[in-house]
Amino acid sequence: MSDFFKGIEPVRYQGPDSTDPLSFRFYDPDREVLGKRMEDHLRMAVCYWHSFCWPGGDPFGGQTFDRPWFGDAMKDAKLKADVAFELFDLLGAPFFTFHDRDIAPEGESLSESNRNVREIAGYFASKMETSKTRLLWGTANLFSNKRYMAGAATNPDPDVFAYAAGQVKNCLEVTKDLGGANYVLWGGREGYETLLNTDIKRELDQLGRFLSLVVEHKHKIGFDGTILIEPKPQEPTRHQYDFDVSAVFAFLQRYGLEKEVKVNIEVGHAVLAGHSFEDEICAAQAYGIFGSVDANRNDYQSGWDTDQFPNNVPELALAIYYILKGGGFATGGFNFDAKLRRQSLDPVDLVHGHAGGMDVCARALLGAAAMLEDGSLASFVDDRYAGWETPEAKAMLSGQRSLADIAERVERDGLDPKPRSGRQEFLENLVNRFV
Amino acid sequence: MSDFFKGIEPVRYQGPDSTDPLSFRFYDPDREVLGKRMEDHLRMAVCYWHSFCWPGGDPFGGQTFDRPWFGDAMKDAKLKADVAFELFDLLGAPFFTFHDRDIAPEGESLSESNRNVREIAGYFASKMETSKTRLLWGTANLFSNKRYMAGAATNPDPDVFAYAAGQVKNCLEVTKDLGGANYVLWGGREGYETLLNTDIKRELDQLGRFLSLVVEHKHKIGFDGTILIEPKPQEPTRHQYDFDVSAVFAFLQRYGLEKEVKVNIEVGHAVLAGHSFEDEICAAQAYGIFGSVDANRNDYQSGWDTDQFPNNVPELALAIYYILKGGGFATGGFNFDAKLRRQSLDPVDLVHGHAGGMDVCARALLGAAAMLEDGSLASFVDDRYAGWETPEAKAMLSGQRSLADIAERVERDGLDPKPRSGRQEFLENLVNRFV
Amino acid sequence: MSDFFKGIEPVRYQGPDSTDPLSFRFYDPDREVLGKRMEDHLRMAVCYWHSFCWPGGDPFGGQTFDRPWFGDAMKDAKLKADVAFELFDLLGAPFFTFHDRDIAPEGESLSESNRNVREIAGYFASKMETSKTRLLWGTANLFSNKRYMAGAATNPDPDVFAYAAGQVKNCLEVTKDLGGANYVLWGGREGYETLLNTDIKRELDQLGRFLSLVVEHKHKIGFDGTILIEPKPQEPTRHQYDFDVSAVFAFLQRYGLEKEVKVNIEVGHAVLAGHSFEDEICAAQAYGIFGSVDANRNDYQSGWDTDQFPNNVPELALAIYYILKGGGFATGGFNFDAKLRRQSLDPVDLVHGHAGGMDVCARALLGAAAMLEDGSLASFVDDRYAGWETPEAKAMLSGQRSLADIAERVERDGLDPKPRSGRQEFLENLVNRFV
Amino acid sequence: MSDFFKGIEPVRYQGPDSTDPLSFRFYDPDREVLGKRMEDHLRMAVCYWHSFCWPGGDPFGGQTFDRPWFGDAMKDAKLKADVAFELFDLLGAPFFTFHDRDIAPEGESLSESNRNVREIAGYFASKMETSKTRLLWGTANLFSNKRYMAGAATNPDPDVFAYAAGQVKNCLEVTKDLGGANYVLWGGREGYETLLNTDIKRELDQLGRFLSLVVEHKHKIGFDGTILIEPKPQEPTRHQYDFDVSAVFAFLQRYGLEKEVKVNIEVGHAVLAGHSFEDEICAAQAYGIFGSVDANRNDYQSGWDTDQFPNNVPELALAIYYILKGGGFATGGFNFDAKLRRQSLDPVDLVHGHAGGMDVCARALLGAAAMLEDGSLASFVDDRYAGWETPEAKAMLSGQRSLADIAERVERDGLDPKPRSGRQEFLENLVNRFV
Repeated sequence: MSDFFKGIEPVRYQGPDSTDPLSFRFYDPDREVLGKRMEDHLRMAVCYWHSFCWPGGDPFGGQTFDRPWFGDAMKDAKLKADVAFELFDLLGAPFFTFHDRDIAPEGESLSESNRNVREIAGYFASKMETSKTRLLWGTANLFSNKRYMAGAATNPDPDVFAYAAGQVKNCLEVTKDLGGANYVLWGGREGYETLLNTDIKRELDQLGRFLSLVVEHKHKIGFDGTILIEPKPQEPTRHQYDFDVSAVFAFLQRYGLEKEVKVNIEVGHAVLAGHSFEDEICAAQAYGIFGSVDANRNDYQSGWDTDQFPNNVPELALAIYYILKGGGFATGGFNFDAKLRRQSLDPVDLVHGHAGGMDVCARALLGAAAMLEDGSLASFVDDRYAGWETPEAKAMLSGQRSLADIAERVERDGLDPKPRSGRQEFLENLVNRFV
Repeated sequence: MSDFFKGIEPVRYQGPDSTDPLSFRFYDPDREVLGKRMEDHLRMAVCYWHSFCWPGGDPFGGQTFDRPWFGDAMKDAKLKADVAFELFDLLGAPFFTFHDRDIAPEGESLSESNRNVREIAGYFASKMETSKTRLLWGTANLFSNKRYMAGAATNPDPDVFAYAAGQVKNCLEVTKDLGGANYVLWGGREGYETLLNTDIKRELDQLGRFLSLVVEHKHKIGFDGTILIEPKPQEPTRHQYDFDVSAVFAFLQRYGLEKEVKVNIEVGHAVLAGHSFEDEICAAQAYGIFGSVDANRNDYQSGWDTDQFPNNVPELALAIYYILKGGGFATGGFNFDAKLRRQSLDPVDLVHGHAGGMDVCARALLGAAAMLEDGSLASFVDDRYAGWETPEAKAMLSGQRSLADIAERVERDGLDPKPRSGRQEFLENLVNRFV
Repeated sequence: MSDFFKGIEPVRYQGPDSTDPLSFRFYDPDREVLGKRMEDHLRMAVCYWHSFCWPGGDPFGGQTFDRPWFGDAMKDAKLKADVAFELFDLLGAPFFTFHDRDIAPEGESLSESNRNVREIAGYFASKMETSKTRLLWGTANLFSNKRYMAGAATNPDPDVFAYAAGQVKNCLEVTKDLGGANYVLWGGREGYETLLNTDIKRELDQLGRFLSLVVEHKHKIGFDGTILIEPKPQEPTRHQYDFDVSAVFAFLQRYGLEKEVKVNIEVGHAVLAGHSFEDEICAAQAYGIFGSVDANRNDYQSGWDTDQFPNNVPELALAIYYILKGGGFATGGFNFDAKLRRQSLDPVDLVHGHAGGMDVCARALLGAAAMLEDGSLASFVDDRYAGWETPEAKAMLSGQRSLADIAERVERDGLDPKPRSGRQEFLENLVNRFV
Repeated sequence: MSDFFKGIEPVRYQGPDSTDPLSFRFYDPDREVLGKRMEDHLRMAVCYWHSFCWPGGDPFGGQTFDRPWFGDAMKDAKLKADVAFELFDLLGAPFFTFHDRDIAPEGESLSESNRNVREIAGYFASKMETSKTRLLWGTANLFSNKRYMAGAATNPDPDVFAYAAGQVKNCLEVTKDLGGANYVLWGGREGYETLLNTDIKRELDQLGRFLSLVVEHKHKIGFDGTILIEPKPQEPTRHQYDFDVSAVFAFLQRYGLEKEVKVNIEVGHAVLAGHSFEDEICAAQAYGIFGSVDANRNDYQSGWDTDQFPNNVPELALAIYYILKGGGFATGGFNFDAKLRRQSLDPVDLVHGHAGGMDVCARALLGAAAMLEDGSLASFVDDRYAGWETPEAKAMLSGQRSLADIAERVERDGLDPKPRSGRQEFLENLVNRFV
């Protein structure tokens, strides 16, 4: 037991009236909601990178966080793991997530790096014997080292492609060994800084091949988790190929992978791409590729990814409503891809951030469930499209009518459809009854 | 001959030193560039809606333009056509474009509206006998009338879908009759204001069916132009299904239309979607769906579509470079989807706007052609990816290597790829030599 | 009594558990909050323009709303007034707001227009004898008519300046006669489309003079309301002089008006200018020019002013917290500068929009008041700056120390200040306890 | 002589037809333009931080640049200075700029840090004896060290305020000793991350006091350079007090400093604040606080400060036109606050970046000068406001008419001003003749 969180008690459910800042007011893991435990609905995860690796730097200033495990030795990595599992325990977090480079130092060669990752994974495995926390997903960091500055799979240098392949193979296998529910690819540098030195078509083909290699290997080793791509429009690149859910779906179909890969949608990435979180959730559901989410929030006045902990219940409740309406998570969950503000220096801030975020999710879940149980919202939508249940409308939609057939009917019958109120304000007020 | 442009002489090429504001300094239609006439490269079109229909209103104020043809009678429509062809002649514009509702008043019924459109199309046909101006594309206005307030193909009311079908059939046929090179669909209201009353999946299926109906009818009537979709992320809707090139490509593949439909990319729409114009051109080329462009520019400090005439040569030269590099236009062209500023009240302003835009395109074409002829830019890119020509790299890319094969090689050989400068500043300076 | 709202009952407080969509769940006008009636805290107003004048158009489509009073005759204006006061009654709205052109048709000359405005103002006055609804503010529309296309006070044509002066004089006097609590100026076209034809310095001087004229006239006629400027960064202009609170404060000081004029802050305008609503409220308070607010919300994914009814309680609660903390409104209030969505066609939608907005404000007020009563947030802030209460710190701040004095002390004492956690996540969680 | 730039020849003017990528095609320092040497117009400066201190990191990856001087020892600082002056010589740069922390390592105490800065300043002084390069401005880095994480002058801890004072005193004096033409303050962390823990009014007062201390010290030591504030809306903070030119002018007047301090306008900061570069230049000129500029460009599709070298001649020509029209620089100049792209690894890339930027500025200057000499643009503007030269218009503007006087005249004379075309397209085309 490290003394990093010394004096901080586990965060426990104490009910809505609790004034203890380190309690849950809504998150009651065992509470049944729509026939399922709250914990099983939300499947919340603590991420390794922001919480244990990020030093508090920004583009205009360096490290603000003092963490005793900052260093490049394996013993530092083990202390970091100790503290990580202590935080998981304090929060009762059911899941965690990591990049390979978060958990173990990079070695002199890929072989050494991979060995380091495997050693810490073993250390995790032993901890997981006594912890309730499972692995939501693992991922390989293919963007921090300068070898990846011009992309990993999409690098002009095929040796970088190969190096990335070697790194992903190891991390995918480690994820499988730790019982990971998913494996994520975020193409942080799979894009371009300038078209002037870039051949998009070539790079897309490289990316398609890379992803196919990963999918083939998944099947070969019998990993039954889901392969997920995380869309983001830009940052660090000026323009990323996985811009948003639609860009990913375009790409997956192009390379025949639309049945094999789903998306991990991050709130802040949706916003950077000009969408709301729900826009992206519903698009992914419509296209059958909804997988998991990275829960956070962006500052609406900042033009970059601010990765703050979620704290607006009405916004999140609507997103969860759509997730539940689409059947909830299969292998996915809510990963807190959220970091402390740079000035939140203390160990207790890590607990505040996560406890607040988890409680907001729980409260939003309760609102979303109430909306679903009430049913008014869903039935309004069904009624609105009821006209499409008539035989003639079905015939149009199923391809039994040609353009000429339809046009002839409109002119013959003098069709003159009248608009009906969309009732947006009524619906917004309705939602406010539940959040 | 109307007297709208009385006293304004045809705009003619007078060379770079001309100080006549109503001359071309660079646009010399017959000048040969890369083995083709300038006019045939650019295929520039005047659009009907902004130039002859828009009254100069904005969300905070009404009409500023006094045009003698503003009115709802067929005689107004004919005067409008007279003036339009007079502008085409003044400019020597090789093409024009229109919506059905631009050219003829809406009638009491779809039948009457369609008849009106056909009558004016006949009037166009007779004018085109003595004019050099051809039709680049036609399109149906499926967004202005309040019946379309909740979408056309994606309307909750199947009668609206049917009405839209009747309108498109007529406009597609008229476009064919006038020898149109393309037919465009812009889904201005094919999207949503709020997810609360919307079923995205259902609406996408409706849209897929609608588009298939159009494609089937095109083949039935033997129209050999290209069907184009024009992406736009939003406005008037909060969120449009045809958000950008990738969203269109995702959709086209989903409904099996990726060989049938291409895109008409608008500069301002690209910018609203978080891309540059070139980003979208290159994406469309990589996916094989590049069709045509709407030339204009957005104000970078405004968050809506400002539809200004293009005026920045270096920006446009790069876009034209990529268009030429990809083979140039087949059936597409440069349509000026650009409008006067609301304070540009006079007939001569219409000439200034177009003459300036055409000249900027011509000047940008010359720069782009010079870049292509020089070849330095293209060969830099080829060199950058040269590593992918080795046998082992080709084997990786063609699927002859598994993830395990590649990983094993990296570890065995101790691969440690070193980054090479991307030379962005050098390349940007290089471009400036030509523009 | 018109029959526009036939069958719609007055909206009444029915408590948090009410499921009646036309009830208030939180807005209970007489409920005492922090020693004051809820109604007196919020001072909510219905605006005339969006609710009774806007036809439902947008840049891509025309009228969707059928209102029996749409027309240019004085009898239309009176029917509009009848319906307006019926809505005020249905809602129990304590205030309303208008532009001169909202309430009466423009005449052939300014004299006739001014007479029309005065006649309808008389009609209002008689209605107000039996209505509880008061006038929060009046304002002159100096942007819709094409004479103002290049600005009102900042127009290159001094006759337009004069015309605007004549219009404002009349509207200011009418506002006084109706007992208005404030008079607002929104410089919708006081800015520029392009610098190429604009002399900023000259236009600022014109604007300064115009505002001085208004302030002088206010004193002359004994109007004791507050003169307010409403900042907005752009739209309809590309760039407006009253960009944001700071731009207004810069301008007011420049022309010696900082004691005479305050600001009316609109949520959506704040967002367009790159601020949050609270950023602007707190800036105005710090500069002593906080006056009133236009309550609405912008869609965060749209780049123009969407003027939606507020519906996010946590966001609004924080804004109200700062307003209350600064002493609440003096003459100001919450004006709903919010419009129905274009598809919300029916009379009842007007009631839904306002009732929902009012209830959100009330709920937010309760949260804000609870935060104030609890006091934890405020005392955290006081503690954070406690160091400034020491004598040496006070001496530095009051000008008793020179740069050299301070520098010498730092070097001599080897000062090495250590950072303390800003506790942002803790504070965000704290706020969530009250909203 | 270090060997960092070994093999790279000085960049020399070779004329517009040069194809040597390391030549100037337009920058000919001694060429006379509008009666002044090109060099004296542009006063271009190389900045120390981006070119010699930035390691190529971004929020998702670390160092990419290998520079032999990276390290914390004084000998590293001297090698850095050697290379810096070698670059200045290669470019023929007339000026450079620096932060105190760029040039010398931070010590154990402020005393030691200040001594380090003075020692390197002495090293500079000796180099400047044989170099033509002068100091455009110095500035203190009050944002990188974690002591400044919550602001410098606006810190809740008065000891941080004091520490910052000690640092600025030293840097201001060093700037004077080196003959600096200006001293700049950029309030990178003078703002807030969250209002929840912030007292804006208090912090503004602190900032006002701090700035007064600096101004008083400037006079005390007889520094005759200009004190400049550099506006930026955000980044690193969520919201910065010096948001834009207007925010600075509001603040300066509030604290009585508007005659003492001017602004240093950065292109990218203007864009982040929702303005164009010219918007900010013209605003500063109108308010009499235009000082200097940071020349760079932002990527229009990125929401953060990208600090790229300028490369768009038409955009920059317009900005320079307004600078020249306002009288050009007094003590200011064009500082390249621009950094290489992260992938531009090589020494030669530093030369490409600066040579390209300098040449773009020179080419833009030639265009701007031609516009001024031609005079058409300026006379169009004068004509547009000619109505204000009439006696009655002058009387209105000078305060000799009351609101009632003016209104009475409008009604009496039946004034009905007619709009005139703003000719924006004509003017844009006109500009294109010169760029």
